[in-house]
Amino acid sequence: MRWHPLRKEWVVYAAHRQERTFMPAASSNPLLPTADPERPTELPAGDYDVAVFENRFPSLVEHSGPATPVSGAHIQAAYGRCEVVVFSQDPKLSLWQLSVEHIALIVQVWADRSRDMAQAGISYILPFENRGAEMGVTLHHPHGQIYGYGFVPSLVARTVAAQRDYYNSHTGHNLVTKLAEEERSLGVRLIATRQHALAFVPPFARYPYETWIVPTRPGADLLTLSPPEQMDLASLLAEVLQRLDRLWDMPMPYLLTLNQAPFDNENHSEWTLRIEIWPVRRSRDKLKFLAGTELGADVFASDVLPEAAAAQLRSVQL
Amino acid sequence: MRWHPLRKEWVVYAAHRQERTFMPAASSNPLLPTADPERPTELPAGDYDVAVFENRFPSLVEHSGPATPVSGAHIQAAYGRCEVVVFSQDPKLSLWQLSVEHIALIVQVWADRSRDMAQAGISYILPFENRGAEMGVTLHHPHGQIYGYGFVPSLVARTVAAQRDYYNSHTGHNLVTKLAEEERSLGVRLIATRQHALAFVPPFARYPYETWIVPTRPGADLLTLSPPEQMDLASLLAEVLQRLDRLWDMPMPYLLTLNQAPFDNENHSEWTLRIEIWPVRRSRDKLKFLAGTELGADVFASDVLPEAAAAQLRSVQL
Repeated sequence: MRWHPLRKEWVVYAAHRQERTFMPAASSNPLLPTADPERPTELPAGDYDVAVFENRFPSLVEHSGPATPVSGAHIQAAYGRCEVVVFSQDPKLSLWQLSVEHIALIVQVWADRSRDMAQAGISYILPFENRGAEMGVTLHHPHGQIYGYGFVPSLVARTVAAQRDYYNSHTGHNLVTKLAEEERSLGVRLIATRQHALAFVPPFARYPYETWIVPTRPGADLLTLSPPEQMDLASLLAEVLQRLDRLWDMPMPYLLTLNQAPFDNENHSEWTLRIEIWPVRRSRDKLKFLAGTELGADVFASDVLPEAAAAQLRSVQL
Repeated sequence: MRWHPLRKEWVVYAAHRQERTFMPAASSNPLLPTADPERPTELPAGDYDVAVFENRFPSLVEHSGPATPVSGAHIQAAYGRCEVVVFSQDPKLSLWQLSVEHIALIVQVWADRSRDMAQAGISYILPFENRGAEMGVTLHHPHGQIYGYGFVPSLVARTVAAQRDYYNSHTGHNLVTKLAEEERSLGVRLIATRQHALAFVPPFARYPYETWIVPTRPGADLLTLSPPEQMDLASLLAEVLQRLDRLWDMPMPYLLTLNQAPFDNENHSEWTLRIEIWPVRRSRDKLKFLAGTELGADVFASDVLPEAAAAQLRSVQL
């Protein structure tokens, strides 16, 4: 990793990734269980619902050895772990098409892997799904990834600080929990609710149709979820992703992230777990590109008001 | 604009932009000078090299009136200005194919527009070029844009702080000037030099083939450039962009930004003007997508080491 002194961010280099598997033919899908022992895939045959393995082309590795000095660069070994989570043995299903029990199992897998990585000393654990070729996805078998970072990314440290400031100045109330409560009572940006969680377009959505799923009870990470909370999150995830696909009757490309507090042995009472879904389409025939203002200034310009997006998503017939 | 309380960033909404001009046929290019008075374009006919006008679909406007309150959102009027800079009357040329004098004129135009916007009370002025359909460009006539923000974006405030910290702890030396001096003496990431400026791949490049152009003399903004400095910047810009297009003999899609200090009436001795060029292709046949780690954690993972990228760009035959 090298340090970007203006942005105060680490940049990770993994030159070996340049040759990684790129859009293989369906006949050589490496995420299918092995059918022919002569041509093994990444996964054995067997009776399982969800599989996890280390990414063959990881950006971050556990045993990288000391970093090679580079003149002019402030460097550090890129300690961490990159895993692939295969959502299903069926290569044709999308995440939301799995049963709610199956999705709840995936939530449990994310929690289990977070526990293991945290015990291995990893500081920040980000489960995510890149969905669609428009997001750069090179394998269409339903799967996500988990990035475990040996450091707390600067963006995450800033969101910790923002939530702590709120927590300290609002006598122990959580910023994101309070936001979710407001959205539940206002209703105008609400998409769906369950007993233990709700889904809404945040009032400050950066992406058109951006949707958050937030448990009603504060909790810093996936390990704090009870089984009923896992089920409600899974059920909302299925509903929201289905609504996004049905919005224009085409698979919506998106980035889905599970946003946990860092596993850095600090107290994170300020943090509320949240799922963020960032669709990258702004209309049926137009993608949302990140360009000058979004990338150059971190100022997102959106064509769709959050209230309008929520109304459209609510009106989708399931 | 609405405030994102976790990221501490403004998000701009411009619902009228949804219907903006999208990939018009060559026969209805709105950036061509008007040929038929019955079918006027955005520009009059006439003898000129570069044209600037206000974006017909602006994200930020000077006279927006008070913002309409939205329950649950912290809002503010999106004061600012969005302009289009047409680089040439010829719809087929790329920026680097213009004469160095013509590119220097564009640099002067960026400076003039920055002066005018700053005098109108705009706090941060970002000239940029989105190049290529892969960057979401909807009009292929050679042009860039200028976004003038009525506030200092959080990202920019952080880079001010980073440069000030360096300036204060290094007895008046500028972080970016010092970086450029080091790159000149090390040479391993250098691409090209002129008397008053140099081009290099930064040691912490986030994009494969990311290239910076930095004047040798510190200066907070485009207004500080002397005519010889403008010429050297223009000459390096032409060379670097040509090298990027020749690297794989195909037009390189990129985001080009001119990074000036805020125009906020503070002293910005810490700042050095820099041009950043972010190509979004990582190999001849593969785009660099921003996905889970880049967007979800602001941690860029790159497949190409800066030293290797610089060597490739240097070896391109012009």
